[in-house]
Amino acid sequence: MPRYGEAFLSTDEVQLIDRYWRAANYLSVGQIYLLDNALLREPLRKDHIKPRLLGHWGTTPGLNFIYAHLNRVIKAHDLDMIYICGPGHGGPGMVANTYLEGTYSEVYPDITQDEDGLQKLFRQFSFPGGIPSHAAPETPGSIHEGGELGYALVHAYGAAFDNPDLIVTCVVGDGEAETGPLAASWHSNKFLSPKHDGAVLPILHLNGYKIANPTVMGRMSDDEIRHLFHGYGHEPMFVEGSDPAMMHPLMAHTLERAIDRIRAIQASARDGRATVDRPKWPMIVMRSPKGWTGPKEVDGLKVEGFWRAHQVPIVNPRGNPEHLSLLEEWMRSYRIDDLFDNAGGLLPELQALAPQGRRRMGANPHANGGLLKHELKLPDFRDYAIDVPHPGGTEGEATRVMGQFLRDVIKLNAEARNFRIMGPDETASNRLDAVFDVTERVWMEGIEPYDVHLAQDGRVMEVLSEHLCQGWLEGYLLTGRHGLMSCYEAFIHIVDSMFNQHAKWLKVSRTLPWRRPVASLNYLLTSHVWRQDHNGFSHQDPGFVDLVANKKADIVRIYFPPDANTLLWITDHVLRTYDRINVIVAGKQPSPQWLSMDNAATHCDAGIGIWPWAGTEDTGSEPDVVMACCGDVPTLETMAAVDLLRQAVPGLKIRVVNIVDLMTLQPKTQHPHGLDDRDFDGMFTRDKPVIFAFHGYPNLIHRLTYSRANHAGMHVHGFEEEGTTTTPFDMVVLNRLDRFHLAIDVIERVPGLGITAAAIKQQFRDKLLEHTTYVRAHGEDMPQIRDWSWPDRFTKHTVD
Amino acid sequence: MPRYGEAFLSTDEVQLIDRYWRAANYLSVGQIYLLDNALLREPLRKDHIKPRLLGHWGTTPGLNFIYAHLNRVIKAHDLDMIYICGPGHGGPGMVANTYLEGTYSEVYPDITQDEDGLQKLFRQFSFPGGIPSHAAPETPGSIHEGGELGYALVHAYGAAFDNPDLIVTCVVGDGEAETGPLAASWHSNKFLSPKHDGAVLPILHLNGYKIANPTVMGRMSDDEIRHLFHGYGHEPMFVEGSDPAMMHPLMAHTLERAIDRIRAIQASARDGRATVDRPKWPMIVMRSPKGWTGPKEVDGLKVEGFWRAHQVPIVNPRGNPEHLSLLEEWMRSYRIDDLFDNAGGLLPELQALAPQGRRRMGANPHANGGLLKHELKLPDFRDYAIDVPHPGGTEGEATRVMGQFLRDVIKLNAEARNFRIMGPDETASNRLDAVFDVTERVWMEGIEPYDVHLAQDGRVMEVLSEHLCQGWLEGYLLTGRHGLMSCYEAFIHIVDSMFNQHAKWLKVSRTLPWRRPVASLNYLLTSHVWRQDHNGFSHQDPGFVDLVANKKADIVRIYFPPDANTLLWITDHVLRTYDRINVIVAGKQPSPQWLSMDNAATHCDAGIGIWPWAGTEDTGSEPDVVMACCGDVPTLETMAAVDLLRQAVPGLKIRVVNIVDLMTLQPKTQHPHGLDDRDFDGMFTRDKPVIFAFHGYPNLIHRLTYSRANHAGMHVHGFEEEGTTTTPFDMVVLNRLDRFHLAIDVIERVPGLGITAAAIKQQFRDKLLEHTTYVRAHGEDMPQIRDWSWPDRFTKHTVD
Repeated sequence: MPRYGEAFLSTDEVQLIDRYWRAANYLSVGQIYLLDNALLREPLRKDHIKPRLLGHWGTTPGLNFIYAHLNRVIKAHDLDMIYICGPGHGGPGMVANTYLEGTYSEVYPDITQDEDGLQKLFRQFSFPGGIPSHAAPETPGSIHEGGELGYALVHAYGAAFDNPDLIVTCVVGDGEAETGPLAASWHSNKFLSPKHDGAVLPILHLNGYKIANPTVMGRMSDDEIRHLFHGYGHEPMFVEGSDPAMMHPLMAHTLERAIDRIRAIQASARDGRATVDRPKWPMIVMRSPKGWTGPKEVDGLKVEGFWRAHQVPIVNPRGNPEHLSLLEEWMRSYRIDDLFDNAGGLLPELQALAPQGRRRMGANPHANGGLLKHELKLPDFRDYAIDVPHPGGTEGEATRVMGQFLRDVIKLNAEARNFRIMGPDETASNRLDAVFDVTERVWMEGIEPYDVHLAQDGRVMEVLSEHLCQGWLEGYLLTGRHGLMSCYEAFIHIVDSMFNQHAKWLKVSRTLPWRRPVASLNYLLTSHVWRQDHNGFSHQDPGFVDLVANKKADIVRIYFPPDANTLLWITDHVLRTYDRINVIVAGKQPSPQWLSMDNAATHCDAGIGIWPWAGTEDTGSEPDVVMACCGDVPTLETMAAVDLLRQAVPGLKIRVVNIVDLMTLQPKTQHPHGLDDRDFDGMFTRDKPVIFAFHGYPNLIHRLTYSRANHAGMHVHGFEEEGTTTTPFDMVVLNRLDRFHLAIDVIERVPGLGITAAAIKQQFRDKLLEHTTYVRAHGEDMPQIRDWSWPDRFTKHTVD
Repeated sequence: MPRYGEAFLSTDEVQLIDRYWRAANYLSVGQIYLLDNALLREPLRKDHIKPRLLGHWGTTPGLNFIYAHLNRVIKAHDLDMIYICGPGHGGPGMVANTYLEGTYSEVYPDITQDEDGLQKLFRQFSFPGGIPSHAAPETPGSIHEGGELGYALVHAYGAAFDNPDLIVTCVVGDGEAETGPLAASWHSNKFLSPKHDGAVLPILHLNGYKIANPTVMGRMSDDEIRHLFHGYGHEPMFVEGSDPAMMHPLMAHTLERAIDRIRAIQASARDGRATVDRPKWPMIVMRSPKGWTGPKEVDGLKVEGFWRAHQVPIVNPRGNPEHLSLLEEWMRSYRIDDLFDNAGGLLPELQALAPQGRRRMGANPHANGGLLKHELKLPDFRDYAIDVPHPGGTEGEATRVMGQFLRDVIKLNAEARNFRIMGPDETASNRLDAVFDVTERVWMEGIEPYDVHLAQDGRVMEVLSEHLCQGWLEGYLLTGRHGLMSCYEAFIHIVDSMFNQHAKWLKVSRTLPWRRPVASLNYLLTSHVWRQDHNGFSHQDPGFVDLVANKKADIVRIYFPPDANTLLWITDHVLRTYDRINVIVAGKQPSPQWLSMDNAATHCDAGIGIWPWAGTEDTGSEPDVVMACCGDVPTLETMAAVDLLRQAVPGLKIRVVNIVDLMTLQPKTQHPHGLDDRDFDGMFTRDKPVIFAFHGYPNLIHRLTYSRANHAGMHVHGFEEEGTTTTPFDMVVLNRLDRFHLAIDVIERVPGLGITAAAIKQQFRDKLLEHTTYVRAHGEDMPQIRDWSWPDRFTKHTVD
């Protein structure tokens, strides 16, 4: 292989970069090991060593090597670049580099650029009350923690969309490269416009090992690697070796080639020609030893270039004098005097290697997206309202109405290019297709004449991978933009763990004043459990909200709008929030509409409320029973149950409570939206039976309300894990969430109904049987159930 | 491209296969559309059509085409083959083919091989009370539903491991190919031994479209596809076209080539040479039109060869006479008279095309793995017990002890080759490394002299992808073998959705008498939330069990062994169970041991129990307080809290209850392991305060116990989503699960402690402060806390 760059970098330049790299490596080792004696002014003693050695050395020197070279290329070409560190456990490297470039001390002024600051820098790492071991929110320049591996490259693409001048360098470790999400992420290049988006420069870092094994890609031949990435649509460039004297010029030259290539691709796409073929974007494959520059052997066992270098390569310097001297030898091998002045400051000629100001990767505002965030322009959601003259008299498809609102959100922010909708091939299927009046789906592959709504530029991103949708959106939000992800309810579980990690990121970010708030991550979960009757059991799972409810109350909100106007209000609301995760669960099928826009606004604002027009109670006295409902289908079934009961038991005083904002059920002490006990008791009574029709697993309601006075009175109907391919009404019957089961439960729980109770229950049971017989004979629900709507005559109470 | 196979298949053979294919296509359309008139004996009328049209046509003709050709090659070479249908929503095709080959009627005798049977076959599909629309457990020959896309290929590999004579053909749709898990699955070939395992023959079916978009791979050039799969380690063979007359011979010839190649690879690996290079396994890339042979256009819009063919291509034959006649024309295009006799039976010359008996893919016993399952040979777990002369006096690492047991499980079943351990690079890190005394990690890539425990043959599979581990294990279990997956607790969320789908599969399978039970899916979750202090917040999440607890009680079990001997008992137990998912959460760190093997057996058998030696209550009277603990760290903290309280409040009557089997907390009506109310009240009292130290999120305990008499008295300490890099004890302090917070809670809840209460609480608070100060100064826990063990003097009650 030709030795690129030997003529390109002078020997002096090579030596300077090498010294910068050694400084970063020294600081990385110092963070892992040292409590004291940060500049090794005296011989290393065991009491200079931390009692618990925590941190990951193996990946770090490679990350530092890349950082140093990116600094060079940023300066040389005045690049706007951020660094996504896939092996985020190489936190010591990210901290070391942002310290060397000065960002760290600006963000954390007590970590000064001198010996005292160095001491603190070392001590705080992985130390109680200090900083985490990963490239966490605490790390300047990071939008990616990487603790759970797999999402580096999707985050990088999310950051690059609509940022035409940005280059996102993304280091992918060969461990991470084995994960599913990462393996799919390489195809993201089919969704990146060279004209409108920035560039992603992937650096696949093959150091050959993970915790205790070689890596799959680390042991693949260059030939297979070349084929694989060519097949993924990249032009791979190899940087391989272990001799720094050879590796520095090779890396410098390769980065030049890669940046040249990016610039050429962008120039050709941006020079006015309408269409270009999907380009082969460059990527770098860097093979370097794991634990590079660290100890070759410890206790006679291979360490450098092997998995034993993964975490702490010398394990017992406090207890083993040989280990101590090996550590000292290692640390001194970086020649501190050649790096820092006597006060502990980085030598000026090395300082000069880092970019300045916002060009430093630790200070690039894209990595603190709240700094760049502009509010979305939102149309008045009232303009999209469905006219609901009285409850239940109108039909509407909630998500279709939401789609019209989103269409105009896209229109109003078209110029700002700061809003995207992601979904796994389901935007139209979820009936948000009004958005296609004003935009298209992004598609960089070939487009056929008969294709519809595909273009190289668009606001909608669809790929059959929830991981990619979620990861792109996270990257997009964390760099200061806005968005929404729509998904089949059951399959959002695919990204449970990504949701977890994003929630953790937000929780920690909120404690860091220098991290500015970013737009919330908004989910629309539709095609939900009650209307997946055509796809069957595998598509029926409402459990994502159980996971969500485990997270810190500050971070999460869960909404179950019962109809279109409530969904409109909530959509508008969530798009205004920040640093949260909002989950909206709403159906797409034609259903009765309950609330006028004004009533919807009042109801959503409270999050929960009594629907007087729906109940039969007198004002001024307590009801006999409360029928609570949360979710669109449970609300419909509750309405129908009230209708049955009105006819069967005249005089029965039913109160109907509808819950839009699930967290209102929690105690106020646990969630800011929670009702206080007095309001809760006022609504649910302290002792009357509550028949609660819930969209999801019944246990979630119990878990939210267990400390309420009337908890023992709560009888929750919801998904009981009974599903199949059948009709919509048969689905609710299978899970006893239907109107008849609800009405029967009321009859059974309300005391004093006397001997008529048995007859009424039998009447309802007969109806159930009649329906079941009908549906199995005809393959569809009985018309009077399918087409049921809330009778006009029961809406006299409506005030509007 | 040369037209392979023109000379290979005679014209007659081509025509026969084409007729078989047409029969399958006809049956597929019939299932989607027809209520009646199954053989089109009279002109199609709207009342012959189902009222709700549910099903997926688009992928089905391709699946049928492949099935017909696999039948041919199975017969030609007497192959042992199963068919994994990635696009499982092509259920009509799988049902049609198993019907044509006779399997379906054997499994479901009412679906006879005549007109009446055809009628029922059509009617039941996606019909209330009938069968699901997907290749579900109800479908003979299926081990893969495919409703949630992404897992076809991992299931295929799981099935092939240790089945040297089996060929697993796996159809991967181009929609599914976009998912993360599938993208990573292609690398599974690096873990398949040509000597000891069977073969997987992937058929990437590029029909170009998903629900409403083209597919990424469908629009990639053959050149990129060839590079990509060459890079993945395959030899791709292309079958492309839409003219059946050309496609049949091409497919037949390509399958011959692929089978030849598989046989050659296997022969070369099995002829006695010790080592072979990783072979390039063949795969087939089949490009054919979506909705092939269906209507070209409907209402003037392109359907065949476009995404509009995805589901029901002609949407309204009941309401639109043009649609009705188009449907009739389509169905008649298959020329029924050429396929079925007058009674509705498949013509004999077509029947003759299917393999016989167990060679039929619908009847292959590997796809009903319980038929092939042998019990594992298990050593006596008592032989591995830690000697615990008195509680808390011994230290042990629970998972290390489990590893010794597993080592001998591997040894005893080495010849049977029916047990594997999967894990994402964590078997050693999780301290199960005793297994490497008797086996190695499977690795088909190059092996270096300094590598350890890698071999082409082994019982341990490690790859840094939870998706692959889970999917391989599922495939392995569903084909009749046994296994265990060990995983960091936090990252098991990565496979939440796979867990969901497997639980659904088991639930339905249990209702089908012909499906024989398979071994349970066993998880060991370790490196858990309380001991991820070195990796920090991203590695701290105990919420998987919340998800598990949502599933049907028949299916799931959750165990929290507090020490090594309890873990041993449970490991032995779960390996004997079937058709379940067992979750074991256990730590790997050195910790005090509480129970002798005998006591452990008694305790685990009950699942929950009072530990009299740990409490301070008198026999015969009620305690003042119950301290409950579930999980190893909560148990330790509870023991230490009791110790503090004994000293601070002599005479306080504390009862200690330990929970191993979490489901004992649920009412007996909800879970077979649940305690009845009387036993529960006997243990937890009806009105005394219960201070409950729980491993996971506190809400889970509330949700399990909300209906118990003493629920209002339960005060649960657990993970409060507070995490970072710190020390083990600091972690529990941050979440108020530590001994001091527990003891303070006791003091606050027990009435009548008088004025001393405040002083005692202050004493505990001071201790907490002292510790926090210490840990932040020294970076490690105070020795008296770190090294605390249950004092000997308190164990006088032990009976053993």
